[in-house]
Amino acid sequence: MAPLAQSVLVTGSNRGIGLELVRQLAEGPDPPQYIFATCRDPEGPGGKTLRDLAAKYPNVRLIQLDAVNLATIKAAVQVVESQLNGRGLNLLINNGAINSHDSLQSVAPQQMLSVFSTNVAGPLQVAKEFLPLLKEAAKEANMEGLSCSKAAIINMSSLGGSIELGFGILQAPMYPYRASKAALNMVTRCLAVELQEVGILCTAIHPGWVKTDMGTEKAPLTVECSVQGILKVLSSLSQATTGAFLDWEGKTLPW
Amino acid sequence: MAPLAQSVLVTGSNRGIGLELVRQLAEGPDPPQYIFATCRDPEGPGGKTLRDLAAKYPNVRLIQLDAVNLATIKAAVQVVESQLNGRGLNLLINNGAINSHDSLQSVAPQQMLSVFSTNVAGPLQVAKEFLPLLKEAAKEANMEGLSCSKAAIINMSSLGGSIELGFGILQAPMYPYRASKAALNMVTRCLAVELQEVGILCTAIHPGWVKTDMGTEKAPLTVECSVQGILKVLSSLSQATTGAFLDWEGKTLPW
Repeated sequence: MAPLAQSVLVTGSNRGIGLELVRQLAEGPDPPQYIFATCRDPEGPGGKTLRDLAAKYPNVRLIQLDAVNLATIKAAVQVVESQLNGRGLNLLINNGAINSHDSLQSVAPQQMLSVFSTNVAGPLQVAKEFLPLLKEAAKEANMEGLSCSKAAIINMSSLGGSIELGFGILQAPMYPYRASKAALNMVTRCLAVELQEVGILCTAIHPGWVKTDMGTEKAPLTVECSVQGILKVLSSLSQATTGAFLDWEGKTLPW
Repeated sequence: MAPLAQSVLVTGSNRGIGLELVRQLAEGPDPPQYIFATCRDPEGPGGKTLRDLAAKYPNVRLIQLDAVNLATIKAAVQVVESQLNGRGLNLLINNGAINSHDSLQSVAPQQMLSVFSTNVAGPLQVAKEFLPLLKEAAKEANMEGLSCSKAAIINMSSLGGSIELGFGILQAPMYPYRASKAALNMVTRCLAVELQEVGILCTAIHPGWVKTDMGTEKAPLTVECSVQGILKVLSSLSQATTGAFLDWEGKTLPW
């Protein structure tokens, strides 16, 4: 089986879904040649598990990247570029995000902006800064169509960002989180339209309600199951699913 | 004909659609008793037309309100509360917004946050601060169902915020503007679900592509026509259309 992609970058990869993505990519039967595992503080106490993983798998490279700090994004691009040594980056997974359970009673403008900054402006800026490397990968692939093995941006979204479903599924109000994921879906859609002509796919993925720090222990889905599903979905993406909003089983979700 | 509502507050009312809303409400056959026309700088040169209107119609009250400045929102609530003298506010129209034509090439995090602050966090905060007065109006009305004459929050959205339509209609990328309006649609939906039990309606309206400073002269629709349509749609809103996304002709738009 061919690898999902020769080079993959995952943001927010020191825990939860990001960490499991890196682990399953590294441990799989045909791993990517480069797995760039980024997080805000790879040397801190929260980066221990990721450091252990990188020590075990030489294709896992730890890189500092804070999506709300443009200088760290630019520095990460330089590190990735030098490690890829002239080749492009195939797959960017914008996974890092923060939650906020603020209700109408508790919400303040500063929380709205902080969540929007990490969950929307950050991923857009990461996509923008890595665009030259993604374009390079699309050019190298020298094939028709779109796929994660060629060049792709995956934005980790949430069913909580479905405007149509509203409170239907996730009962909690969570104004900042929901608004940020709806906005991220819009960014995904804009990127998909704009970048398909240069051969880059862009899709929004809902990972399910997963037992992580963010999803809590009440969640029905293990992080292993969720990430198995996500990786299967990623390998199936094509021209037909760029600009789509899919869950970890590949089901289309309403905007 | 009964007035649309006994008391109405419009943000961003010194020009464009906001100004025309105030004008048509004031000049109509059965005007509201209170028209609170707010803008960032009512005493500045941009407030001249609005001041002339207020001089002509004593039910038009000019109030300073900057949606990104919480202190001015709180001060505006106090002024409105004292003028209403114990009665509630029926209709809040969150109309104030800024545009940004930033493309992927030109967009920077600061523009994303600035547009999000004015177009999403601001309207949500305005709704939150005026909630006690809206609840009071819903209680006074002492009737079943939802309507603008009872208690309502109208968020001026845009077709550009339709994630499904994407670039279909408005060709320009406009990442910050589109993301902000998708997020505002989500806020509208959350408010609609949360507030229906206290008798407050919440609906998102697309005013059409209108000849204003924001819409430019190329727009096909005059501001008079757009606002005539909007006011007709507002008068028709009910339980069935709370949480909906409608255009100035009452047509439902996809999220």
